[in-house]
Amino acid sequence: MSETDGKALASELAGRLEAALEAWREALGPAHVVLDPEALEAAETATFATTQRIPALLRPADTAQVQACLRIAQAHRVPVYPVSGGRNWGYGSRVPPGDGSVLLDLGRMDRILEHDEQLAYLTVEPGVTFRQAHAWLRERGSSTFITTIGGSPDASLVGNALERGDGRGPNPDIFQHVCALEVVLPTGERVETGHARFPGARAAPVFRWGLGPVLDGLFSQSSLGVVTRMTFWLSRKQPWFREFFCAVNDDAWLWDAVNRLQALALDGTLKGSLFFWNDLKAFSVAQQYPYASVGRTPLPDWAREQFREGFGRWAISGALSAPDADFGALLEKRLAGALEGAFRPVAFTPGPPDGESPFQ
Amino acid sequence: MSETDGKALASELAGRLEAALEAWREALGPAHVVLDPEALEAAETATFATTQRIPALLRPADTAQVQACLRIAQAHRVPVYPVSGGRNWGYGSRVPPGDGSVLLDLGRMDRILEHDEQLAYLTVEPGVTFRQAHAWLRERGSSTFITTIGGSPDASLVGNALERGDGRGPNPDIFQHVCALEVVLPTGERVETGHARFPGARAAPVFRWGLGPVLDGLFSQSSLGVVTRMTFWLSRKQPWFREFFCAVNDDAWLWDAVNRLQALALDGTLKGSLFFWNDLKAFSVAQQYPYASVGRTPLPDWAREQFREGFGRWAISGALSAPDADFGALLEKRLAGALEGAFRPVAFTPGPPDGESPFQ
Repeated sequence: MSETDGKALASELAGRLEAALEAWREALGPAHVVLDPEALEAAETATFATTQRIPALLRPADTAQVQACLRIAQAHRVPVYPVSGGRNWGYGSRVPPGDGSVLLDLGRMDRILEHDEQLAYLTVEPGVTFRQAHAWLRERGSSTFITTIGGSPDASLVGNALERGDGRGPNPDIFQHVCALEVVLPTGERVETGHARFPGARAAPVFRWGLGPVLDGLFSQSSLGVVTRMTFWLSRKQPWFREFFCAVNDDAWLWDAVNRLQALALDGTLKGSLFFWNDLKAFSVAQQYPYASVGRTPLPDWAREQFREGFGRWAISGALSAPDADFGALLEKRLAGALEGAFRPVAFTPGPPDGESPFQ
Repeated sequence: MSETDGKALASELAGRLEAALEAWREALGPAHVVLDPEALEAAETATFATTQRIPALLRPADTAQVQACLRIAQAHRVPVYPVSGGRNWGYGSRVPPGDGSVLLDLGRMDRILEHDEQLAYLTVEPGVTFRQAHAWLRERGSSTFITTIGGSPDASLVGNALERGDGRGPNPDIFQHVCALEVVLPTGERVETGHARFPGARAAPVFRWGLGPVLDGLFSQSSLGVVTRMTFWLSRKQPWFREFFCAVNDDAWLWDAVNRLQALALDGTLKGSLFFWNDLKAFSVAQQYPYASVGRTPLPDWAREQFREGFGRWAISGALSAPDADFGALLEKRLAGALEGAFRPVAFTPGPPDGESPFQ
C-alpha cells in the first residue's frame, strides 16, 4: 500500500468510527460510550504484554441495546469484541485479538432472571458473576450450588461457559449443563435456542434440545453471535460430603491409579470432577513465586525438590458426596481401595456446610 | 402454471434425473442405483398412508461414495433424502417428506470402526444397528453396553442419535453421549467434528468439544449434512442390577412421586432413565389391539377399565445399578421409600446377566 493509500484508509476508518460512535451515543446514552484513556488502557492490559489498541468501550444495559450496538457496528463496518466479565485471566482477559476493535462490555447486564429451587436451574445475563450467583443462592438458603471454577469469583458464568471452562462439582463440564441461550447475531437479529424460542415453553430451562438442529454449540468459542442470556443447571447439595486428597511419587503407580479412578467414574462412585496436579501446578497455587529465596526464574531444581519432599510429585484430589452417611461410607471405602499405596495416603475432610469449599 | 409450462418443467426434471442416475451408476456401480418398482414401493411405505414417490434408491458403500452422490445431486439439482437404517417406525420410516426425492440409503455402510473396552466407546457407520452392536459387544465378552431403545433392534445407532432418541441405561439421552461426527455436506465436502478433525488426535472419541464452535448439534434433526460416522459412549455393566416397577392409581400420589423421584435423580440414587406410562401406553405395549373382544376403535371405556383393574392407571419403571450388593441395598431402600404407598407396591427384579433386558 502506498503512503497516500494508507492515509486515505486511516482517514476512512476514522470517519467510520466517528459515525459509529455518534450512533452508539444516541443508542446507549453518552455515559455508556467510554473514551476515557485510563479505562481504555486498563482494557488493553492483560497478564502478558499486548499491543492491541481499543478505540472505545460500549456498555449496553439490555438485549435491545446489544442489538442496536451490533446494527450500528454492521452499518459502519467497525469491528466489536464482546466480553461478559472480562476476567478470563491468563487467556487474554478483555483484550481483543485484533487491533482497533471496540469493546462490547456486557458487565451492566447483571440480572439473575430466574431461579428454580426444585428444578435446580439459574437463568442469568452475561454480567452475572460467580460471586453474585453464590451470594444470591446463599441469601435464599438454596440447597443448590453452581460448579466452582479455578478462576476469579468475579468471572462471568456466561463467559466461562462459552469458553467451555471446567470446575468442581457434579457438573464439571459446564457447557454440557447449560441451555436456552439468547443470542444477538451480527445483523442485530435475536435468536433463542432450544424450546426457548417458543413463547411460554415451560420445558425451555430444563430440556436442551428443542426442535430441529441444535444451535447452542455454534456460539461457544465463537465469533458468530453475542450471548445475552443462558440457563445453568445447578447441583443439589448433599447431606454427606467429603473432599479427598492424596500425594503420589511413583509415576507407574499414578498411571495405575488413573485407570482405577476411571473405573470408579464409570461405575458411579465418582460423580464429578477429579484433579491430577503435578508439583509445579500445586506450587503455583500454594504460594507466590519464591523470588526472595531463589532470586530468579525458572525454578531451580533444588527448590522444586524441596517442595516435592513435603508434597510429592503428583496430587490427586476431588470430592465425594452422598445422600446419607451409610452411602458415603461405601463411597469412601471404594475410593480408599482404589488409592491404596499412595506416597501420602488418601485423606478425607468434610467440606464447610455452606458450600464455599474450593472443592465443592 | 400453464399446462405447457408444467409439461416443460416435468420434462426438464426427468432429464436432470436421468443425467444424475447415469452419473450415480458410474460412481456406485449399476447394482447400487436401484429402480426396481417393488423396492421403491417398499421404501414409499410407512405405518401410515403416504403419497410421496421415490424415483430411485442409492446405496453407497463408503464415505467417498456418499461424497460422490451428493456432488452429483448438486450438479443436477436432484433432491436426495438420507436414511441410516430406515427403521424410524411410527415417525415416517424411510419415506422422504417431499415428493421426488431420491433415497440415499446408508445401510451398506455397516462397519463397526472402533471399540475401546476400557474407555467404553464404539465408533460406527450409519448402517450399524442396535442388534449388530449388541452382538459385537457380546461376542467379545464386553463389560459395556449401549443404551437400549424402545424401537426395533434393526434401527441404526446413528439414525436414532441424530433424531435424538432416548432409551434405557445410564446414558438415556443418547445425543448427549456421542461425539466425533464425520459429515458430508451438500457440496460433497467432508467435515469431522471435535478433535476428530486433527489427524491422530487420541482424545477425539472421548472429548466432545475440540476447538472453536461446536458443530455436532447442527446435524441432528437436520438436512444440513449426511452423517457417515459417529462415536457412542457406552455404559459399564454393574455387578448389582435391579429393574423396578410399581403401579399407581391416584393422580395426586403420582405427582408427589414424580417430585420424590426427581430428588433421587438429582442426588445420584437414580442414574439413568425412568418411565411413567399411563394405562393406554402399557396396554399398547402389552398386547395387540383387542379387535376380537371389543370389535372396534376407539377402545371402549369398559375395556380400559378392565385393563386398569389388573394394571393401575399409571406405571413407574426403571433400573438401579451399583458396583456391589451393599451399595445396591442402599439404593433399593431409598427408592422403596420414595415409592411407598403405591397401588401396587414397588417390585425389584434382577435383570438377566447378559444385559439383554429391555430395561438394561
